[in-house]
Amino acid sequence: MNVQKPYNSTAFSDWYLKALEDAQFFDYSPVRGCMVFRPFGYKFWESIQSELNKHFSRLGVENAYFPLFIPEHFISKEKDHIAGFSPELAVVTFAGGSELEEPLVVRPTSETIIYHMFAKWIKTHKDLPLKINQWANVVRWEKRTKPFLRTTEFLWQEGHTAHSTKEEAKSFAEQMATVYASFMREYLAIPAYVGKKTNSEKFAGADFTITIEALMRDGKALQSCTSHLLAQSFPKAFEVEFADSAGNMQTPWCTSWGLTTRAIGATVMVHGSLEEGLILPPKIAPVQVSIVPIRKTSDPINKIDDYINQLSQDLAEAGIRFKVLDDATSPGNRFFQSEKIGVPFRIEFGLRDIEADQVCVAPRVAGFFDGQKKIFVPTKNLKIFLLEQLNSFHDFLLKRAEKFLYSNTYSIETFEELELRLSEESGFYEVNWCGEDSCEKKLKDIQATFRVIKEILPTDTSGSCFVCRKKANLLVYAAKSY
Amino acid sequence: MNVQKPYNSTAFSDWYLKALEDAQFFDYSPVRGCMVFRPFGYKFWESIQSELNKHFSRLGVENAYFPLFIPEHFISKEKDHIAGFSPELAVVTFAGGSELEEPLVVRPTSETIIYHMFAKWIKTHKDLPLKINQWANVVRWEKRTKPFLRTTEFLWQEGHTAHSTKEEAKSFAEQMATVYASFMREYLAIPAYVGKKTNSEKFAGADFTITIEALMRDGKALQSCTSHLLAQSFPKAFEVEFADSAGNMQTPWCTSWGLTTRAIGATVMVHGSLEEGLILPPKIAPVQVSIVPIRKTSDPINKIDDYINQLSQDLAEAGIRFKVLDDATSPGNRFFQSEKIGVPFRIEFGLRDIEADQVCVAPRVAGFFDGQKKIFVPTKNLKIFLLEQLNSFHDFLLKRAEKFLYSNTYSIETFEELELRLSEESGFYEVNWCGEDSCEKKLKDIQATFRVIKEILPTDTSGSCFVCRKKANLLVYAAKSY
Repeated sequence: MNVQKPYNSTAFSDWYLKALEDAQFFDYSPVRGCMVFRPFGYKFWESIQSELNKHFSRLGVENAYFPLFIPEHFISKEKDHIAGFSPELAVVTFAGGSELEEPLVVRPTSETIIYHMFAKWIKTHKDLPLKINQWANVVRWEKRTKPFLRTTEFLWQEGHTAHSTKEEAKSFAEQMATVYASFMREYLAIPAYVGKKTNSEKFAGADFTITIEALMRDGKALQSCTSHLLAQSFPKAFEVEFADSAGNMQTPWCTSWGLTTRAIGATVMVHGSLEEGLILPPKIAPVQVSIVPIRKTSDPINKIDDYINQLSQDLAEAGIRFKVLDDATSPGNRFFQSEKIGVPFRIEFGLRDIEADQVCVAPRVAGFFDGQKKIFVPTKNLKIFLLEQLNSFHDFLLKRAEKFLYSNTYSIETFEELELRLSEESGFYEVNWCGEDSCEKKLKDIQATFRVIKEILPTDTSGSCFVCRKKANLLVYAAKSY
Repeated sequence: MNVQKPYNSTAFSDWYLKALEDAQFFDYSPVRGCMVFRPFGYKFWESIQSELNKHFSRLGVENAYFPLFIPEHFISKEKDHIAGFSPELAVVTFAGGSELEEPLVVRPTSETIIYHMFAKWIKTHKDLPLKINQWANVVRWEKRTKPFLRTTEFLWQEGHTAHSTKEEAKSFAEQMATVYASFMREYLAIPAYVGKKTNSEKFAGADFTITIEALMRDGKALQSCTSHLLAQSFPKAFEVEFADSAGNMQTPWCTSWGLTTRAIGATVMVHGSLEEGLILPPKIAPVQVSIVPIRKTSDPINKIDDYINQLSQDLAEAGIRFKVLDDATSPGNRFFQSEKIGVPFRIEFGLRDIEADQVCVAPRVAGFFDGQKKIFVPTKNLKIFLLEQLNSFHDFLLKRAEKFLYSNTYSIETFEELELRLSEESGFYEVNWCGEDSCEKKLKDIQATFRVIKEILPTDTSGSCFVCRKKANLLVYAAKSY
């Protein structure tokens, strides 16, 4: 594997949209900023739901569902919250044939309504910890939208927990960040930098926000999901209290954490390539293996049909998701159909192969089989071969993405150097920062932001701030981002 | 089993709300007409989703997701549709900090936006049949609400299919009604009358509506789900056309079908009883078996703990959903906890039972074990015993509900008789009807409606209309309803 440089941003954006349309992930809708999830794209979300539910359940989190509408005065109860969300709200003012006395906000997130309910459910320390998750649609009025990455309505899960101590809440928020990071790696084959956001980038109202920050193939960062220590701001605003074991009233410590449908966009933008097209990591790929029979007009139809049925049965038994591409078009056309939907492995065979009890397996990425474009596999070994190779292909994609991430992360001394480098090539740029807002704000001039704090250095080894040159003990990744 | 008469409506309504609150199915929310699904109640919805998805998938239906908002002018494109829904709409007029040029309706159902997309996706007969389902929240501004049965926001699935012939669409709508009816019987143990709605009761814009009509324990009917032949009204309004094999442009024939969270309310109201409390059918019960160890202070703690662990492992392996009730409270209190959440079977044991390698199993309904309140089962047989008994308990509940349904269905000759009977006792009342709106409208005076057409009789055997006494060849079930 050679070091891959980031793609040109416009070319990559064009590629992304076309790849999504070709594979029928989505369609544009007549509603401003909202997209339609076509079945191929929605399968990703169902797959993510099923996988994350397993993790949540292991941590004692239960799913619930809260109302779509939030009374307007709820939103303004937490001061940072209203400041963060007010320009993005969609508001119902008219319902059931008349003007509403109090407008209803379409949820941009559900902290306010959930904390209102927590106040009813939490009475004593025995009610804690309370761990709730919700799968829902939310609405934020976005100016510029892009399918899966930023849409006015999007789908997400938002988890909310309440704990009796700050230590426990902090530890839970950290644990959830670990769950997310491992889900991204193990399921989507996406490596990422994991760490805290700076104060200006954290969630409105949170003590801290841990972000999972991945690198897209055009060198832009993408915040894939976040876990927040909300601490006590919301419980205080919504008067959530519990009696501790001594009977004294206390305020619980809270967390929230969420992952959205942008994880689908990230999967496409981390593994896809302008040269190779859409490539999907095997665990989430809706189709893991395509079956392309190559028929000659002289071939006995039954014999090939029977073999397809046998293969289909074998693959179904092994739990492999497959698709038979057997329309009357040329093999080349069907190979292209398979590529367009990012299928990790393609199986081809003709009558001769059937007679020789073998099939030809072609990986989605040339060179995956140690440089061989295709290899022949005896039918009887196929199931085990594919199961093994699907795992290997996951590891291969993850390693390739890691290499891209690390080889496009640079250490930089000064703002001027950062400005120059970013104008030439995107990526993560590690800088020393003094912690002052004024220095962070300079990044706006060059369309960059701090994405994630890498490390807090001991003060005696600290370097100089990339802007003001004062002593700086924060190591931070700056980047352009989605 | 004796014939069970319907409960008094007010007493049953009070029981229903208390049973739901005690088991923590839901909570009231600060948003008018909207409820919160607490984890116990939401589990029912997840279980329904998972089960119905299997059926849909077998019929070639794929899940997708369409926008929450619908441009206002879309709603009025189909004339019956706007007439049916306009008083119930919630409308966003303000978003992103300013007044919208065109208000956006929060979907009350998604036909309009889906047909707009179908017009983009359907070009030739090769694109048909197109079979799409969506799991989503919808909003209808309801005046009187009741948890799970009628709420302003509710969760549902709405399926939409397009076919090249009317015959195929009709057959698909009928097939889906069969799927629903069998899902209600086989999964929720709910028997029902299945048939067409009258013209005035069918879905606004449909050719016909097939309804699955169940009977609650207070003798009121509940429309549990419906399947519609939409025919061509929506495709015509949204200009959906396909080229047939000869290249001629045709309008497709369409169906839609939906099941909502009211299926959860129906499950509670069909099986629950004022005398026995909440009883849940085993296939959907969040907890199928409760484990109640009975400890004496002199008992070696480890021995009982080990046995609980062993049991838990066995039940988990068998795929049985169980809950260990082992807090420091009295056995009676824990039996009550188990009853409150409707658990089909309770397992009890003390040290002596462990030593005798047996447990005591108590069914949720006294008399289920041929009159025995509890029976002892050797530990080694427990898994198989429980799996069998869970199935039998399903059959038992279904039979009991069938008996209730049939024994509370009466044949009635005249409107006066119907009026008198309904004032005394609810249930399904079979009447002959001439088909005239004016006769159907008389039912309004007695708070009843036609729920479902039972049969269309041959004209030569037809009876007299229950209102006008003219020749009447329709046999229809009338009832009070939710």
